Amino acid sequence: MTLQIIPIHFKNDVQPTDDLIDLLLSSSKTSLENGDVLVISQKIISKHEGRVVNLDSIIPSELSIGIASAYDKDPKLVQAILSESQRIVRMEHGVIIVQTNHGFICANAGIDESNVENGYATLLPKDSDKSADNIRLKILQQTGKKVAVIISDTFGRPFRMGQTDHAIGVSGIDTILHYEGTPDTFGKILRVTATAIVDELCSAAELVMGKTKKCPAAIIKNFEFKENTGNIKSILRSEEEDLFR
Amino acid sequence: MTLQIIPIHFKNDVQPTDDLIDLLLSSSKTSLENGDVLVISQKIISKHEGRVVNLDSIIPSELSIGIASAYDKDPKLVQAILSESQRIVRMEHGVIIVQTNHGFICANAGIDESNVENGYATLLPKDSDKSADNIRLKILQQTGKKVAVIISDTFGRPFRMGQTDHAIGVSGIDTILHYEGTPDTFGKILRVTATAIVDELCSAAELVMGKTKKCPAAIIKNFEFKENTGNIKSILRSEEEDLFR
Repeated sequence: MTLQIIPIHFKNDVQPTDDLIDLLLSSSKTSLENGDVLVISQKIISKHEGRVVNLDSIIPSELSIGIASAYDKDPKLVQAILSESQRIVRMEHGVIIVQTNHGFICANAGIDESNVENGYATLLPKDSDKSADNIRLKILQQTGKKVAVIISDTFGRPFRMGQTDHAIGVSGIDTILHYEGTPDTFGKILRVTATAIVDELCSAAELVMGKTKKCPAAIIKNFEFKENTGNIKSILRSEEEDLFR
Repeated sequence: MTLQIIPIHFKNDVQPTDDLIDLLLSSSKTSLENGDVLVISQKIISKHEGRVVNLDSIIPSELSIGIASAYDKDPKLVQAILSESQRIVRMEHGVIIVQTNHGFICANAGIDESNVENGYATLLPKDSDKSADNIRLKILQQTGKKVAVIISDTFGRPFRMGQTDHAIGVSGIDTILHYEGTPDTFGKILRVTATAIVDELCSAAELVMGKTKKCPAAIIKNFEFKENTGNIKSILRSEEEDLFR
């Protein structure tokens, strides 16, 4: 079966007062069907939830000023990063990698000045699983269709250059497809294979969404998955299991 | 434009004597067109190139026996891993993360006992860019179509559970789409955005290939990219730039 990834282009920027479900449904050139996966960029969720900060309004602490000076950053941005983080994981080469309050390990706590008005930055949604839940339930109410919803953000990664999209919130789908205990094509039992399908779905959606195309969402059709509540914590590696922290 | 990801199912296991291009073309239900991306799993490239090892035939060194004993591994497998590696990056919880001779950082040097005959394991291709080049050129010769070819493998990653597919060899496509210097939707110039498109393409293809479906390749249609020679080294982060080694 051919997997289809269909971009949803938005004409205008998203405001907190917008009806996001109406916007998604009316901007989509195709109808949602049972079993579709809807991937939505963090950026429009944050804007819709008012998670946008005016950097000028931030008063940096002494710590933020010190870090900013040592790492050649804007002290107000550093202050925003620290407010969104439970701890700093690495700081070097002008890069600040933190563990966010949600548990994501990423640069700048996911705070992003791109595709937002000058002088402003978006913060990650407070609870992206809840954001995804709300959207999934409203779609079910308005269209009768059972879809999975994934909120996606762009993260760098160790070892490899460039960024790829990762899930930061899910609803209606498990984060990982577990193969442990199932036979491979030679009848051998797989022991460690577990595919991070929600991250792969986000990466797949990013291929049509891009960064400059006013395309903050995509519908993925013909991906088979088991309907499940799902939660993003299930894909976060605990510190004890992580060899790179 | 809808991105399409079309699985290519193989009836039989790949042998070194097979004509891999014939197999790919005859197994595909759709024709290759200019601008398509062909993603092929490492497994069949390794099998085709004879990069399969009989674990019983390996004589482990004292070092391999020591590591195997300390980390609860098969000493013959450890010997194979060390032979394929330039250095060990982490060793803990029964997991050996190495930097392979090619420069990839992954578990077990990419040596994999799944989907191969009992007692055997596949090694990564010696030079996956060359493997991809050969396939791309033969497709061009036989069909007249200019496609990009990516060799894909399944790697775990720090911070997050589960595995996703990553590129280990490319031909006809740049690994990374650089946005640095281009304006975002608000006219602001992007400074650090650089999408690892070949990894996203591998992750997208994995969604149809899976691990147990005898589907070792996929064709991706309608992905816009600049034709280029490409090479996998360009996506490997140097040690100096890597905060996690």
